[in-house]
Amino acid sequence: MDDSTRKKPLHRPAHGEGRWTGIEVLPYKEDDRALFKSVTRQVLFSDPELHGEMRYFEVAPGGFSTLERHEHMHAVLILRGSGHCLVGREVRQLNTNDLVTVPALTWHQFRATGREPLGFLCMVNATRDKPQLPSAEELASLKSDPAVAAFLRGEPKVS
Amino acid sequence: MDDSTRKKPLHRPAHGEGRWTGIEVLPYKEDDRALFKSVTRQVLFSDPELHGEMRYFEVAPGGFSTLERHEHMHAVLILRGSGHCLVGREVRQLNTNDLVTVPALTWHQFRATGREPLGFLCMVNATRDKPQLPSAEELASLKSDPAVAAFLRGEPKVS
Repeated sequence: MDDSTRKKPLHRPAHGEGRWTGIEVLPYKEDDRALFKSVTRQVLFSDPELHGEMRYFEVAPGGFSTLERHEHMHAVLILRGSGHCLVGREVRQLNTNDLVTVPALTWHQFRATGREPLGFLCMVNATRDKPQLPSAEELASLKSDPAVAAFLRGEPKVS
Repeated sequence: MDDSTRKKPLHRPAHGEGRWTGIEVLPYKEDDRALFKSVTRQVLFSDPELHGEMRYFEVAPGGFSTLERHEHMHAVLILRGSGHCLVGREVRQLNTNDLVTVPALTWHQFRATGREPLGFLCMVNATRDKPQLPSAEELASLKSDPAVAAFLRGEPKVS
């Protein structure tokens, strides 16, 4: 019981927006190819008894997450700030508390296009596949859509 | 694909605090025994591909959730307002964005003790057991702790 209590403190207070007692702010990914910019990652809930995980990602103004896809689904809630996302070929403006569903094998990216950081919760299955990056051909295909190309340039226009 | 798109709109904007486009506000539970008070329930994410579910519960000022326990774990994030919770025999004051872990088979209750509604996200496994209610003996045992008894009377004192 003591062990499990140490592993699972029952109450972890928030201190400031997007920070919690006892939760480490991690690099978003270990990757030096500059496929993302100014993103941090925090694991809020991950437990052998839970079949899902809840992570918190925070994108600094002007930053963006990796453009990627995977078999597993994302269930996202915007916790702070505003921004834009690409899901498939849809560009959407996001505000605090909005919900975003990223279906299986769907290209997606989040961008902090406002003055504040964009912070979002992301629920995923605990067991999941690794993200795939677009090939040159796939990227060209995505960019053939002017709205997607504008989003990827950091100039999102909502359709 | 059209079917799944209809089931899973990729973007569901928030409108006002604790309300979302296309998400129905449901009764917390169908139970006429007055074991809870002034609680609503919304299912934010539930999908055959997801091993977890994300629900949003909102407790009006003075309201409280059912005192219960179950095998499955709760992973909670306070989305709006403040209040108190009982987890086991621990009473904690809760503020916006705080995290609460409710371990397996642990009595718990949430109370909106502030002037604003207490709204919280609750992540659970999609497959889970039904809640158990305390027997008269279990309730008496809980109330033998003065801090727990005060919480259950709606007069929480944080230890």
